[in-house]
Amino acid sequence: MAKYEKSPLAPERFPTLGGIAGVKFSTVQAGIKYKGRTDLMLAEFAPGTTVAGVFTKSLTASAPVLKCREHLTGGSARALVVNSGNSNAFTGRRGEESVDHILTAAADAVGCEVGEVFSASTGVIGEPLPHDIVTAALPGLKAQLGSADWEAAANAIMTTDTYPKGATRTAEIGGVTVTINGMAKGSGMIAPDMATMLSFVATDAVIPSAVLQALLSDGTDKSFNAITVDSDTSTSDTLMVFATGQAGNPSPASPTDPLIADFKRALDDLLLDLAHQVVRDGEGATKFVEITVTGADGDLAAKRIALSIANSPLVKTAIAGEDANWGRIVMAVGKAGEKANRDKLGIVIGGVQVTHDGMRVEGYDEAPVAAHMKGQNIIITVDVGVGIGQATVWTCDLTHGYIAINADYRS
Amino acid sequence: MAKYEKSPLAPERFPTLGGIAGVKFSTVQAGIKYKGRTDLMLAEFAPGTTVAGVFTKSLTASAPVLKCREHLTGGSARALVVNSGNSNAFTGRRGEESVDHILTAAADAVGCEVGEVFSASTGVIGEPLPHDIVTAALPGLKAQLGSADWEAAANAIMTTDTYPKGATRTAEIGGVTVTINGMAKGSGMIAPDMATMLSFVATDAVIPSAVLQALLSDGTDKSFNAITVDSDTSTSDTLMVFATGQAGNPSPASPTDPLIADFKRALDDLLLDLAHQVVRDGEGATKFVEITVTGADGDLAAKRIALSIANSPLVKTAIAGEDANWGRIVMAVGKAGEKANRDKLGIVIGGVQVTHDGMRVEGYDEAPVAAHMKGQNIIITVDVGVGIGQATVWTCDLTHGYIAINADYRS
Repeated sequence: MAKYEKSPLAPERFPTLGGIAGVKFSTVQAGIKYKGRTDLMLAEFAPGTTVAGVFTKSLTASAPVLKCREHLTGGSARALVVNSGNSNAFTGRRGEESVDHILTAAADAVGCEVGEVFSASTGVIGEPLPHDIVTAALPGLKAQLGSADWEAAANAIMTTDTYPKGATRTAEIGGVTVTINGMAKGSGMIAPDMATMLSFVATDAVIPSAVLQALLSDGTDKSFNAITVDSDTSTSDTLMVFATGQAGNPSPASPTDPLIADFKRALDDLLLDLAHQVVRDGEGATKFVEITVTGADGDLAAKRIALSIANSPLVKTAIAGEDANWGRIVMAVGKAGEKANRDKLGIVIGGVQVTHDGMRVEGYDEAPVAAHMKGQNIIITVDVGVGIGQATVWTCDLTHGYIAINADYRS
Repeated sequence: MAKYEKSPLAPERFPTLGGIAGVKFSTVQAGIKYKGRTDLMLAEFAPGTTVAGVFTKSLTASAPVLKCREHLTGGSARALVVNSGNSNAFTGRRGEESVDHILTAAADAVGCEVGEVFSASTGVIGEPLPHDIVTAALPGLKAQLGSADWEAAANAIMTTDTYPKGATRTAEIGGVTVTINGMAKGSGMIAPDMATMLSFVATDAVIPSAVLQALLSDGTDKSFNAITVDSDTSTSDTLMVFATGQAGNPSPASPTDPLIADFKRALDDLLLDLAHQVVRDGEGATKFVEITVTGADGDLAAKRIALSIANSPLVKTAIAGEDANWGRIVMAVGKAGEKANRDKLGIVIGGVQVTHDGMRVEGYDEAPVAAHMKGQNIIITVDVGVGIGQATVWTCDLTHGYIAINADYRS
C-alpha cells in the first residue's frame, strides 16, 4: 500500500470511545495483502442484538454486500468479520463461495447461526480473496475477543485512509442513557482497487430491527448519501448498525415513537460526524466544502443541484486553486437538469453575496471572498429561485494529490 | 490568457481547406480581452443561405445562445459574429442588450435583416461584454471580407485551445460535387471562465433548413454529443451549419431522401473529425480514449454506461497512469444506473479479453494490456450482457495538467 501524508483536514486525534455493552472486538495481522499492520477484525455481539444496514446501489456490488443484504432479512446479528486488502468484488461464484466459507467459520467460532453473521471486504477488486487466511485466523480472533478498543478496530479496516475515524454520542430513551459508537473508513468515495466506504455503528440501546432500519435509512440520506469525493460509487459500500439491547431501555414501537426522538438526533449527528471525517480524508483533499442549495423545486432537486456543484471537476479545481470562480458554480447549476431560474440565481460564498437576481451584485468586492477561499472550510450557498426545496452536501477539492494517488496506485 | 504547450495529441497540421462559394471571412485583433491575437471574426453568407443549429442544454445558457435559438426559426443566415475573451453569459438584461447591439450593427454592415444574423461568444462569464468594441470593429471587418482562410477564422475563435481545429469533406448530391468545411474550438468540454465548445460548418450545397437541421441533430448525437473531457457542460456550446446553395445541386426533399445519403455520410464524418479534435485538445490530455459499450438494454443505455466510464475520475486517472485497472471500469458500469449483468460482464482493452462472464479470464496476462496502455490511443470495449444496444464515446485522460490549468486559471 502506498503511504500518504495524514490529511491536513484530519481531526486532532481519535475521540475517546468507551465500550458498548454486548460488543467485543479483536484484530490481527492476517497478511491478506498488507504487511506490518492489522487487516482483519472480528466483532461479536451479545445474543438478542438487532441489526440494520444500507449498502451500495451499484449494480456490480461485491459478494459480501449481496450476502449481507440476504442476512439482514433475519434482523439479528451475532458476529461481523471485516478484512482490508481485498474487496472480493467481481470474483464470480468463487467470490460467493469465499464469503460462505468465512461466514460459516465465524458462526462456528462464535457459536451462532450463519444467518447472524455479516462480513465486509475492501481492497483490490477482481482478485480471488484468500479466504483460507481468514478462516484460519478466526479461532484465534475468537479466543482474543474482549477488547473494547474501537480505535484498534477502526485501524484494522483502513486501506488508503490516512487516519482512523470514530465518533460517539449518548442519548436518553425513556429515562435510560444509551451510548452509540461508530467507526468508518474511506478516503475516496470509492477507489475499487484500494479504498471504499465502510462504517459500523453499535449501541447498547434496545431497538427492534425494523425501527433501527428506518432510523438508519433516514439518517444516511442526510450524511453518507450527502457526501462525495469524486462522484464514483463503490462496489462495496456498507453501513451497518448493531443494537445490543444491553441498556435495557423501553423498546420504541416505531421510528416516529417520541421515545426514540433523542436517539434519532444522536444517531443522525454521529452519522454526519463520521461522514464528514470520510470527506476530510478525501484523496488529496486540502479543503472541506459545504454546499447548500435553497429555493429548489423540492428537496430532491436541491440535492441533485448541490451534488452537481460538488461533483464538478471545474468547481473542485477552482476551490483547490483558492479561486472565487463563481462562474463555474453557475455552470454546474445549469447542467444539473433541475429547474433553476437563471434570472433569480443568488450565490453566497463565505457569507458574502456574490450574485443576486441572476447577475453579479453591484460593486462586488472579491477581496473578502478571496480571503474565505484561502481557508480550510469553504461554505457555498446557492438559491435557484424557483421553490422552497433545500439540501446540503459536503465534498472536498480536486488537487494534484488526487491525481498522484489515483494515477499511480497499482503501478 | 495562460499559455500552454500544444497538446501531444494534436494533428500534425491544420488541414488544407479551400473556400466555400458564398462564404467570406474577416478577422481582427479587437482587444476584447486578449492582446496580440485575433479575437473577433465576421462571416458573411450569400443570400439564400439556409441554417441549422444545436446548442447547450444548460438551463443557464448564455445570451447569444438564447438569441441564436430565436433567429434559427427563420431558417436563413447572412452573417455570423464570433468573439473570444468574453462569453456574455450570466450577464442578465445587459447581456441581452449587448447581443442586440452586435446583431443590429452586423445587419447594418452586411445589409440584411437582424433575424439573419447569428453570434457566439466564449471566454470569461459574468463580466459585461464590451459590445462597443465589437460594434466599432464591424464596418472594418465588412470592408475586409473576402478571405477564404478557414485557419485564420479558426484561430480567431480560440480561447485556451492549443491548436486551431478544421476539417473538410466532399460529397455528391445528384451528380453535383459539394464541399463541407468546418472549424471548432474547445479544450475542456467546458470551462465557463475560459473555454467552451463552438463549431461552425459551411457547405455550398443546396439544402432546405429543415433538412439541414435534421441531419445536424442526428450527426451531433454521434459526434459532439458523444465526447466528454470533464463531464462539465458549457453555458455557451454552439454548433451551426450554413448551406449557401451555390453548388446548384438538386434540393433534397427530406432528411431521408436518397439524394442526400452521401452528403449525410460526409457531414457525419466531418462532425466526428472535429469532435475528436476537441477531445485531443482536452485540458491536460495525454491519451485519446475510445469507449464502446455493447450488449446494453438499448442504444441510449449503452451511451449512458459509456459516458459513466468516460467521466469517471478514477478510470481517467488510471488511464493517465497507464494502469490497466479494469476494476475501475467495473465500478463505473455499476454506478451508471442502467441494466448490466454482473455475471456476464466482458471487458476488452486494446483487443485483449480481460474479463468474461463476470470474472477475470483464466490465465489473464496483463503484459499486452499494459503495453496498450502506454500508447496514445486507448480502446476499451465493454459488453454488459443484457441486450443489443451499443454506443461509442470518446474522451481523454485526467492528468496533473488538467489540475494545473483549472486550479490556476484566474489567479
